[in-house]
Amino acid sequence: MDFFFKPSGIALIGASANPQKGGFAILNNLKTGFDGGIYPVNPRYEEIDGVPCYPSVADVPDPVDLAIVFVPGHRVAEVIRACADRGIRGVMIESGGFSEAGPDGAARQETLDAVAEETGIRLWGPNCMGLVDAKRRYVFSFVSPVIWEEGLLSGEVSMVVQSGMLSGAFLIDVMTHGGMGISKVCSIGNKCDVDECDLLEYLIDDPDTGVIGLYLEGIADGPRFLALCRRSPKPVVMLKGGKSDRGARAAMSHTASMAGDAAVLGGALAQVGVVEADDFKEMMDICRTLAAFPDAAPGNPGRMAVLTYTGGAGIVSADRLDEAGIPLADLSAETIDRLKTVFPDWMPVSNPVDLWPAVERHGAEKTFNAAVAAVCADPGVDGVFVHVFTGGFALNPDIPGMVKTARDAGKPIFCWLLGRRDDARRLQIEAQELGMPVYREIGRAVECIAAVFRRKMDGVDLVDGVDRVDAGAMPESAAAELTGEGALDEHRSKKILSLCGIPTVDEAPAATVHDALAAAERFGYPVVMKGLLPGEVHKSEGGLVRLGVGDPAAVEAAFADLTARMEGRGTVLTQRRIAGDLELILGLVRDPQFGPCVMCGFGGVLAEAVGDAQFAVAPLSVREALALIGRLKAQKLLDGFRGAPPVDRDALARILVRLGDLGTAFPQIREVDINPVIIQGGRPVAVDAAVILSP
Amino acid sequence: MDFFFKPSGIALIGASANPQKGGFAILNNLKTGFDGGIYPVNPRYEEIDGVPCYPSVADVPDPVDLAIVFVPGHRVAEVIRACADRGIRGVMIESGGFSEAGPDGAARQETLDAVAEETGIRLWGPNCMGLVDAKRRYVFSFVSPVIWEEGLLSGEVSMVVQSGMLSGAFLIDVMTHGGMGISKVCSIGNKCDVDECDLLEYLIDDPDTGVIGLYLEGIADGPRFLALCRRSPKPVVMLKGGKSDRGARAAMSHTASMAGDAAVLGGALAQVGVVEADDFKEMMDICRTLAAFPDAAPGNPGRMAVLTYTGGAGIVSADRLDEAGIPLADLSAETIDRLKTVFPDWMPVSNPVDLWPAVERHGAEKTFNAAVAAVCADPGVDGVFVHVFTGGFALNPDIPGMVKTARDAGKPIFCWLLGRRDDARRLQIEAQELGMPVYREIGRAVECIAAVFRRKMDGVDLVDGVDRVDAGAMPESAAAELTGEGALDEHRSKKILSLCGIPTVDEAPAATVHDALAAAERFGYPVVMKGLLPGEVHKSEGGLVRLGVGDPAAVEAAFADLTARMEGRGTVLTQRRIAGDLELILGLVRDPQFGPCVMCGFGGVLAEAVGDAQFAVAPLSVREALALIGRLKAQKLLDGFRGAPPVDRDALARILVRLGDLGTAFPQIREVDINPVIIQGGRPVAVDAAVILSP
Repeated sequence: MDFFFKPSGIALIGASANPQKGGFAILNNLKTGFDGGIYPVNPRYEEIDGVPCYPSVADVPDPVDLAIVFVPGHRVAEVIRACADRGIRGVMIESGGFSEAGPDGAARQETLDAVAEETGIRLWGPNCMGLVDAKRRYVFSFVSPVIWEEGLLSGEVSMVVQSGMLSGAFLIDVMTHGGMGISKVCSIGNKCDVDECDLLEYLIDDPDTGVIGLYLEGIADGPRFLALCRRSPKPVVMLKGGKSDRGARAAMSHTASMAGDAAVLGGALAQVGVVEADDFKEMMDICRTLAAFPDAAPGNPGRMAVLTYTGGAGIVSADRLDEAGIPLADLSAETIDRLKTVFPDWMPVSNPVDLWPAVERHGAEKTFNAAVAAVCADPGVDGVFVHVFTGGFALNPDIPGMVKTARDAGKPIFCWLLGRRDDARRLQIEAQELGMPVYREIGRAVECIAAVFRRKMDGVDLVDGVDRVDAGAMPESAAAELTGEGALDEHRSKKILSLCGIPTVDEAPAATVHDALAAAERFGYPVVMKGLLPGEVHKSEGGLVRLGVGDPAAVEAAFADLTARMEGRGTVLTQRRIAGDLELILGLVRDPQFGPCVMCGFGGVLAEAVGDAQFAVAPLSVREALALIGRLKAQKLLDGFRGAPPVDRDALARILVRLGDLGTAFPQIREVDINPVIIQGGRPVAVDAAVILSP
Repeated sequence: MDFFFKPSGIALIGASANPQKGGFAILNNLKTGFDGGIYPVNPRYEEIDGVPCYPSVADVPDPVDLAIVFVPGHRVAEVIRACADRGIRGVMIESGGFSEAGPDGAARQETLDAVAEETGIRLWGPNCMGLVDAKRRYVFSFVSPVIWEEGLLSGEVSMVVQSGMLSGAFLIDVMTHGGMGISKVCSIGNKCDVDECDLLEYLIDDPDTGVIGLYLEGIADGPRFLALCRRSPKPVVMLKGGKSDRGARAAMSHTASMAGDAAVLGGALAQVGVVEADDFKEMMDICRTLAAFPDAAPGNPGRMAVLTYTGGAGIVSADRLDEAGIPLADLSAETIDRLKTVFPDWMPVSNPVDLWPAVERHGAEKTFNAAVAAVCADPGVDGVFVHVFTGGFALNPDIPGMVKTARDAGKPIFCWLLGRRDDARRLQIEAQELGMPVYREIGRAVECIAAVFRRKMDGVDLVDGVDRVDAGAMPESAAAELTGEGALDEHRSKKILSLCGIPTVDEAPAATVHDALAAAERFGYPVVMKGLLPGEVHKSEGGLVRLGVGDPAAVEAAFADLTARMEGRGTVLTQRRIAGDLELILGLVRDPQFGPCVMCGFGGVLAEAVGDAQFAVAPLSVREALALIGRLKAQKLLDGFRGAPPVDRDALARILVRLGDLGTAFPQIREVDINPVIIQGGRPVAVDAAVILSP
């Protein structure tokens, strides 16, 4: 892919001498920053603006390995062929008129695919704004020259943006407002060939990129995407467009009905350590923060010291940190003594630290520097959140001094800034260059602080000692159960789960009433009795469930009644009654983008009320399964609710791992619902289940 | 209060000729904008900067009705006395060194209270930054002169800010970044006399104020505050500092344990139509939005048309609107036809409307104007969310044209803006002055759109036909039950509720086993039997509850066992068993700030898992009670969950009204817990309850 990012020469096909046209803007941008050969192609000109122009790409001299194409859509295919003939390796197609432009455009794009396949040339676009590389000053784009006037502020953040206009508009906004350094912005458009995975792969290994931000409306290859994110040592932040537009999904199971695109995507991203954003600027703020502090050490709790010049902002910061689950540091006695040296005697020192009374005595510079030094020396402080005002009140701080102190102590420092507009911008750029991210809102600052301390790589290891389920190791008897189509009955479903090592409730099918009585005797009264009809998932609605069958007479009556209701077609099942503390729903669903995914959620009334179900992509490790369980919102229900013993999370995680393995090993399984898994004395037991096979 | 806001003359006590001092800054600010008499007081000077200076306030000539005091804290009391002697009516104390400054300061502040009481003079502050009135150009404050250099941008939003430094810092930030017009900023400091209620009352009637924003860390007089908010025809937006710091509360009841400060405050604010904000800039953004569109007509669903130049931002807008519960408008066939006149043929028109292909053909100005006109003419569109880019790409829009079209159609229009920094600021100020609020983030824009369409005045009417409970109307027999202290037993508690018109479960205390058998016969088997011990709230833990007593023999056994367990002290209660679809918890708690408050939440496992309980301040109307129920998050549980009939919301609301009345009428009631209220066939019935009396 280097020919896209570091070409030795570029043919610009569709160059124009008309300053109103994109073909002029691209040439102009190339001339301003690109240091290789620039070869405009247009038979109408001999030269444009002093640069020799060529009638066709065949006439372009060496070196040339990249073509930028900005000719009308219907001419693009022939141009690409000519590029391939000329030995050019990559083409960036910035023209529109393809799949975004109705059926005719879609047909044109299919032609491009064919040409790429045929010639082996790589295509970037079409319908995109190309590439901006702020470090190299390469602008392979018709983006407005405004970005040059304001200075391309280079930094560590690279972005891949699916929307063309947005990438351009956003870039100019970000560049001109300051405080955000960019490495590369890749506008990928309709991605007929080069897609987000190709670019992600390139950027992961790109020494100029520290953090990767993605705005995507769809992911071409889910498994490859997740594998890349998983192996990326660099933080990846993603904004996904189109979350509310849930794909219609045939839902036979509860699991499938919960598996909206956003839920599955959210689980998959969390699993591979991608930070999700909800808005463009939020994404940029998280990116620039992670560029400054790529990752806190594992287990760093992020105990923050808040230093402020106004008690009110200290209070609001404490409120927002509390909501985000970021603890306020307990300052040590030594730190408090150090702070007292700048405070008036009457002032009690606590965190947040309101420095105003000290600033009044010693000035802002001395006070803030002393306070940063004191909290940075405290082993109970993991990071500093400092509030700064600039442009009045003699509050101007010593930014380099504070940043240096924090850096020397190895502690991230974050800044909330108010101030006079131009002063604030200058300070923001200065701080940002020194490595202290600056925010204009406390809430956003806290969100970014949380991203630093809470970003987790859940899914690194797959070595965790649990027996994995694979197709080869499944007993023949179990594989034999995976026949037919649609929902297997409860008993067959649980037999399969049990063979995978998932604990299931004791139960016995009963051909005769004597079988049922014997089973009841074995399990102890009361028992549960059910009528199983082939293909029937909703037993309760059909009156085929008896929950508290208390004695032999009741067993006889239930057997007779269930048999009669099923008109001789089904089976009667006798089951040990499990009295539990909590019901969960576990499941497996096959996502069109990511393949088999497991779900864990709360059951019963909670399923309806809370809708709290979390997903992860299979196969997953025990550690990933534990992380999935940890993402459930109502954690306190798992931690020993109302005097019950806490849920055995390891046992639950192992069930999830095996469920995922089952889906991975057997593609004929479309869905699995284990509903409920009852937690009895802390241990999960599958009480009812349906394995659903594809037709 | 006019002498604070429109004084005819001001004595500045503590004026200084030293430009580094606040006493100079205040004088300078007065000279720049104030058009009445200005009288610096300081025995050390004959004149300061050309203004005659007086040795004492007694020497100050007329007209003078306000004093601004900036002398050291220990001298303030004597100065106030001198002001009172001089006939001055109000004093704004901007000096610090009072309750914020340790025990000595607190004692000094108490002296101020005494002087105010003694002389009748009104005191504003101390420890505050006074008042800025951008419309009149009055700056009664030591705030930095920077605000003059940047131009005081006047507008409709007035603010009351408890934190001094914050008000000044924030003001300079807001003023210099543009786009936000201010009417008055009142920094109230330690509020020893004039408090948020006094200012709220003034601002509600102030013709220059359209919207009121409050940053408060505490509310001095809860009931007065709520009454003022309730009667305010102007939107009130509030940011409360200190939410995470929940006051420790003695909790005998579930209700009390749920009644954190934030929960009660949130309920109270929602009840009187105050919009809550979580951050300073968020508060300002909501304020300026509501200044443009103070309130949508009741019942306006806020169906939005989104007009964008980039599909990606359209998608993200749709996602955020969906999450906020704001619907996307279904464009009419006529609107789509109108839009098609600017679109290329292949382009399907849908909402969000991606205008880029049309902009390419007709330019931004024509396209955006045509699109705004088309959607504004659509009766199915209630508001327009337009995305604008400025500074490149020939995308500059016709702001006045779009705003006029929307205004003529009576539809709110909101703008998300990206762009080159200076262009963006100019556009923002222009748009803001024309009445179109501009946002830099889609998420924030959507939050403000939601504030316009979702702001509700729940609590206007108290006339709704429900029988109110008052002390006089309570039967003597009921009042007689309100004796003793601590928790009344379940039966007495429900008797009181029943006398207030709250439906309770059928039950009968049994002196003998024959009474119990007779009651069981009357209610039908199975029944519930309980042992009631005086002062014992937790019957289950004591083994004093029998849930399914199935026949006369079981009644006899239960009676004997309960009697034995209670060792002759308590009463046995026989109760009809209620099989319900859903459990709720209703309650009453006495909040230190707002007095009696009712609560409604989900019971059972949901209470622990969701923590979804809503509060309102009593007394409340049925409409307020319905609104409280409507604020519960898990609404779908109320709407006929799993085939159950929907909850009778009117009946539930009437219980809440009566519960609130009970707390209002009888101050000796400290808490009430009705846990559970079971919903049976849609109707709520109180099944267990505890009325807790104050000692």
